[in-house]
Amino acid sequence: MDPLFEFLCRMGDNTLVLGHRVSEWCGHAPVLEEDIALANTALDMIGQTQMWLGLAGEVEAKGRSADDLAMLRDVWDFRNLLLVEQPNGDFGQTILRQCLFDLWHKDMLTALTASTNPRIAEIAAKAVKEVTYHAERSADLVIRLGDGTEESRARMQAALDRLMPNTGEMFQDDDTDRALAAEGVAPLPSSLQAGYDARLGALLAEATLTRPESRYAQAGGRTGRRHSEHLGHLLTQMQWLQRAYPWATW
Amino acid sequence: MDPLFEFLCRMGDNTLVLGHRVSEWCGHAPVLEEDIALANTALDMIGQTQMWLGLAGEVEAKGRSADDLAMLRDVWDFRNLLLVEQPNGDFGQTILRQCLFDLWHKDMLTALTASTNPRIAEIAAKAVKEVTYHAERSADLVIRLGDGTEESRARMQAALDRLMPNTGEMFQDDDTDRALAAEGVAPLPSSLQAGYDARLGALLAEATLTRPESRYAQAGGRTGRRHSEHLGHLLTQMQWLQRAYPWATW
Repeated sequence: MDPLFEFLCRMGDNTLVLGHRVSEWCGHAPVLEEDIALANTALDMIGQTQMWLGLAGEVEAKGRSADDLAMLRDVWDFRNLLLVEQPNGDFGQTILRQCLFDLWHKDMLTALTASTNPRIAEIAAKAVKEVTYHAERSADLVIRLGDGTEESRARMQAALDRLMPNTGEMFQDDDTDRALAAEGVAPLPSSLQAGYDARLGALLAEATLTRPESRYAQAGGRTGRRHSEHLGHLLTQMQWLQRAYPWATW
Repeated sequence: MDPLFEFLCRMGDNTLVLGHRVSEWCGHAPVLEEDIALANTALDMIGQTQMWLGLAGEVEAKGRSADDLAMLRDVWDFRNLLLVEQPNGDFGQTILRQCLFDLWHKDMLTALTASTNPRIAEIAAKAVKEVTYHAERSADLVIRLGDGTEESRARMQAALDRLMPNTGEMFQDDDTDRALAAEGVAPLPSSLQAGYDARLGALLAEATLTRPESRYAQAGGRTGRRHSEHLGHLLTQMQWLQRAYPWATW
């Protein structure tokens, strides 16, 4: 696959899938303010998806629209990280997943503002403003819930143990990454690891949480080779309207 | 709508929707024997669906196939009882739902073996053999779990309180029913109520369960006027393959 198209799908599928997941909380969050905050976060990510997948459609020969890419691909064509397709679990797990993603996402977007591809630099500059806020908010909540009651701390630690193995693939370079890095379009994923580890370490210390010792990294999301069972179920819900009523308009 | 088509959809949608619900247990039941028994029950009901919706397609002008009717209709066209679209809950709730349905289903099919419509009499004669066995099995389990441990009894009572209001519409006559009863095609639903109440009463006594005092009957399933929120989610899963890959063959 064209490396540029592949890269844009990776960026857009992350925000699409996580945006959908977070939107599942709408009307169900523990307090009203969090409900609205989660819905806003989801909307930001869906907006970013529109930009990434819109550009992906422009650069590919078939010229699909962002909607085509979002609604008519199946599991094996998605390029999102395994992390973002994991189920919401409880509120703590949702927030921890967001925090693990935001930390990486903010660094990635910051690097992309210097991309040699002006369209990518432009999208990144727009998105990084929103994501800076997401990252602050999710980090704050992880600290409050980790360094909170015994119950909330136990839940956050369980969420960390559950989700941490899904973060490793963020930093694995492949041919797509090397091709784009050579042209200065995007940073090598591995170049973001040291900063991520340092920032996450400081955050977890403040949250009184312990990073699991194992560095096992489950991979297969961003390459599309092996998604978890959860993605298919998510797409079944997300794509239902387009599938049942193709090209419906209002 | 043509009363005969409507009636056949009611029969076929009951077994389709309950068959799908019960199939959700496949691989998840508490013990292997129950897992296999539930899968077999589901398969029986899907087989009966093929007969009822097959005949429905034959009698309607548009001439849709059983597959068309199962996979291409949306919520508002389904005519199943509210009872059968309710979620599985725990194993006890699934078994109690099955028992409440089987009791009615067996009586209905027995009456239909004397239908003036020979095709209906034939399908009923075939189905009633399977359903007699379903009814025995679900009644046995309701007694064992009701008259079991404190925990199992409490769960069965909760399931009964939860599901009982969804049984009332089984016995509500409408114009469709009256048209068919006048021709001797099908019994009036209300004619089945006394027998059902007597048999259910005896069963609940043996199971040490208490029928809720309220006789409130939630209606809208068999008429299609107001399904519960659960049916749309069920159809999203059930119709996914046909929706995503229309007319796929193998």
